[in-house]
Amino acid sequence: MTAGRRDNARGADPLPSWNEGATKRAITDFVKNVTTEGSADYVRVPDRIALFDNDGTLWVEQPMYTQMAFLLEDVRRLAPQHPEWKTTEPFKFVLENDLAGLASAGVQGLMELLAATQCGMTTEEFAKTAKDWIETARHPKFERLYTQCIYQPMLELLEYLQANDFEVYIVTGGGMEFVRPWAERVYGVPLRRVVGSSLKTRFEMRDDQPVLVRTSEINLLNDGDGKPVGIHEFIGQQPIAAFGNSDGDLEMLQWTASGAGARLILLVHHTDAEREYAYDAHSPFGRLSKALDEAKARGWQVADMKRDWNTIFPALSQ
Amino acid sequence: MTAGRRDNARGADPLPSWNEGATKRAITDFVKNVTTEGSADYVRVPDRIALFDNDGTLWVEQPMYTQMAFLLEDVRRLAPQHPEWKTTEPFKFVLENDLAGLASAGVQGLMELLAATQCGMTTEEFAKTAKDWIETARHPKFERLYTQCIYQPMLELLEYLQANDFEVYIVTGGGMEFVRPWAERVYGVPLRRVVGSSLKTRFEMRDDQPVLVRTSEINLLNDGDGKPVGIHEFIGQQPIAAFGNSDGDLEMLQWTASGAGARLILLVHHTDAEREYAYDAHSPFGRLSKALDEAKARGWQVADMKRDWNTIFPALSQ
Repeated sequence: MTAGRRDNARGADPLPSWNEGATKRAITDFVKNVTTEGSADYVRVPDRIALFDNDGTLWVEQPMYTQMAFLLEDVRRLAPQHPEWKTTEPFKFVLENDLAGLASAGVQGLMELLAATQCGMTTEEFAKTAKDWIETARHPKFERLYTQCIYQPMLELLEYLQANDFEVYIVTGGGMEFVRPWAERVYGVPLRRVVGSSLKTRFEMRDDQPVLVRTSEINLLNDGDGKPVGIHEFIGQQPIAAFGNSDGDLEMLQWTASGAGARLILLVHHTDAEREYAYDAHSPFGRLSKALDEAKARGWQVADMKRDWNTIFPALSQ
Repeated sequence: MTAGRRDNARGADPLPSWNEGATKRAITDFVKNVTTEGSADYVRVPDRIALFDNDGTLWVEQPMYTQMAFLLEDVRRLAPQHPEWKTTEPFKFVLENDLAGLASAGVQGLMELLAATQCGMTTEEFAKTAKDWIETARHPKFERLYTQCIYQPMLELLEYLQANDFEVYIVTGGGMEFVRPWAERVYGVPLRRVVGSSLKTRFEMRDDQPVLVRTSEINLLNDGDGKPVGIHEFIGQQPIAAFGNSDGDLEMLQWTASGAGARLILLVHHTDAEREYAYDAHSPFGRLSKALDEAKARGWQVADMKRDWNTIFPALSQ
């Protein structure tokens, strides 16, 4: 951490990677209004709840969801034992490197792959596998660790909100058990504030020790209209801010926008093919179409990556 | 709050309703050990997680679970529209006032009654119904509000642990949506720290407003071996203290007891027929048999209500 970075954290500019402009101003005005006692928009601390989508909002989701890269390795490794996968979706998409096909299978497809490859072990064993993988796996384009392909402006936003007594949750369509083991280290968010898709688990005694075994049955598909379900289950009260980037976040944003009081609703729009990726309505992963229309109709914020962010990724430490 | 009560909260005696003796000493020794830096048992703040069962541990569960009393009213009210209930379990138990039958139907039966009567409405509507009911409903024996039939010694324990930077969760076999609306007011526990049984909900837009509708499908049966499942899902890390009173808490206690480090595992044993109730292995509700054997075998604490508690319920304010 440089001296400049520390100064910023002290309040000089809490969001140095955001360019000056309407989007940055909307964020800082909102935070000022809800945290200033006596303001019409003041929100008491226990009600300051903010939600962040993960894929495409906190880290890169192209050329495919990171968790999918993790899964592909397992599917390929196990394929010889499952000849039927060659002709069965979504497995054949993996074996044929058909990313568009994989994308079309959506979160449901992801969960089917998960169920076929990453179940049967205990939750502890799976957490170790996920943690070990993420510590060395690198992004094909940026050639840095996936956990370094996170967005510096969003990290600043996470930190800024938490410094203003927000309780921050990650609400991901991806697997909760995949994200939790490293969420605190990478994002500074405690693992119990990660809400995500999950498999059902089963309690068992093994060698006189209780364990939870991952079954192949889907417990929660925390994407699209499943996100408000997960939010209500885990948090049980109305959030006041939500950050997403795709149509899979639409219902989460609608849910957060509803009810009385000030709200900050923001979409990250990937417009920077040079520094990251440019995609929206026609992308196989992180498709953004309906949610962008809704943002325009409802006056939600849109962070245009090319326009609003002067930095994309954190600097790598030497 | 009396002056004496305030002094106690300041540390003179954090547990004034607990008689001096081995049980109280085990509690205070544990808290001292895990909160004293340099102690071999020291636990850093983020890992100080404690779990409390609700029925029979925090409040009275005789002559039946409080939530069942709430349900019975609805089942009776709707019975004329469902003639088949007269011959169908668990509905017939309700209509025949057969408490033993109801008890034998267990949490599963409770959830079936819930699904038949308290679904279809939005989560917000249900929360209001539960909140309204609990504000006036009274216990048949003690003739005070159910929310006043809570155990003063356990309230002190909740407060004592929170004052020592424990994050406290209520882990109930009862309905999460039933307990959450009043948990903060009655127990001082934020609603998102209530883990319980639940129905699946479905996202819908009604009059351009997003709502969650309670379906009749069971989402989680947070009892017995379902408790570690709920704990792992909501908290995702090992708790270090757990408090229960029945065989439905056994797996929660085993789960908490496992792993390395100091643990406080305690069963409330209802031994006081005069001041509350006396029951264990033969009770239709809150049956305690296997968990008591396990407590003896493993050296867990047992709070004998008659011996260990000098007060049962909070004094009623004038």
